[in-house]
Amino acid sequence: MTLAILGGTGPQGQGLALRFARAGVPVAIGSRDAARAAEIAAELTAKLPEGSAAISGHDTDGAVAAAEDMVILSVPWAGHNATLEALKDKLAGKILIDIVVPLAADDPKKVDMPPEGSATEAAQAILGPEIPVIGALHNVSAVTLRTLEWDINCDVLVCGNSLEARKKVMALVSKLGVTAYNAGGAEAARCIEALTSILIRINISKAVPFTHAGIRIWAPDH
Amino acid sequence: MTLAILGGTGPQGQGLALRFARAGVPVAIGSRDAARAAEIAAELTAKLPEGSAAISGHDTDGAVAAAEDMVILSVPWAGHNATLEALKDKLAGKILIDIVVPLAADDPKKVDMPPEGSATEAAQAILGPEIPVIGALHNVSAVTLRTLEWDINCDVLVCGNSLEARKKVMALVSKLGVTAYNAGGAEAARCIEALTSILIRINISKAVPFTHAGIRIWAPDH
Repeated sequence: MTLAILGGTGPQGQGLALRFARAGVPVAIGSRDAARAAEIAAELTAKLPEGSAAISGHDTDGAVAAAEDMVILSVPWAGHNATLEALKDKLAGKILIDIVVPLAADDPKKVDMPPEGSATEAAQAILGPEIPVIGALHNVSAVTLRTLEWDINCDVLVCGNSLEARKKVMALVSKLGVTAYNAGGAEAARCIEALTSILIRINISKAVPFTHAGIRIWAPDH
Repeated sequence: MTLAILGGTGPQGQGLALRFARAGVPVAIGSRDAARAAEIAAELTAKLPEGSAAISGHDTDGAVAAAEDMVILSVPWAGHNATLEALKDKLAGKILIDIVVPLAADDPKKVDMPPEGSATEAAQAILGPEIPVIGALHNVSAVTLRTLEWDINCDVLVCGNSLEARKKVMALVSKLGVTAYNAGGAEAARCIEALTSILIRINISKAVPFTHAGIRIWAPDH
């Protein structure tokens, strides 16, 4: 049941690797630089409590090959499409979990969406209809993920055109102790990805008392 | 300091009228049918605790004329653009607060955004740059608003191209006892409006234990 995390040497990828490994899910982190991936895997392993699953380091193709059925894409937006073009043939039979947010290059408080509408929709267009793309985990702060003693203060909105794949990803995400919600088809990623830029604005703003903001779905207090 | 609410006879408009009046803000509800507006104003007034501000009923033009400086637009999406075209000349010197969500006609779990990107951006295009349009209050359930004994379980994301107008609307919204966040320029409405359709999906879903979901911005639990 190994999970691949591409871009697993970045802050978000490292945080997810730690959280999933601690939750018992073996993680194969992938990077263009396999030596760097192995180094980061060793560093992360040293931070894990006993009883955690293993974190291993690979080049990108190796991480994809190691994945049982799910691959998280956690690269910077600038490398999103090129990474997927290169991997297209190797992802057959797997679910791609896209956590990438198309932040504007000059202002992370804004998004600069691709013509497809969102990163998730762009990924689906590149991979074609046979490989389900699921958008998830966009709104969780990397700092929060990497600080294992904090609870994750964020619900996870999960979207994508395959309901079956959405359900599998919701079950995976739930292992992190967070609540995952079915947010509908891939178009919902236009909202979910953009929410990250709003959270970044709130974090940067001097008007609010906290950083690493997340979102929660909340019921009336009654 | 009277606040106009256009479409004030609908569920969301009625709820906002009740909440603002209870918070001490006089409300002029506007409708195409002035008699209906007067009737609803009387019904709402009967529900208010002592010490609340007044709710009065008017035709649309009359409500706009009664507004000190802010006008809430709370009509169905189908009437959004036509209402603004008709009011354009009368809104000079005022801020338009657009709470309308372009829900898809055949599926309220989805949005069907206009070519401008969102209702807020469409409104700004119609009214021109001299009249500031602020998107706000999209995500608060009408049922929650109308149930005065409930706290409002929802933070309010406020966006629009005028920072000055955003701040005025944040101050207004704060009177309802909710936290208002500066979410940036009008483009953020693409996310904030669409979030309502995701909340509607969550409300409809059998998978979650509650209805009338709202969103909260949440800090790490540490």
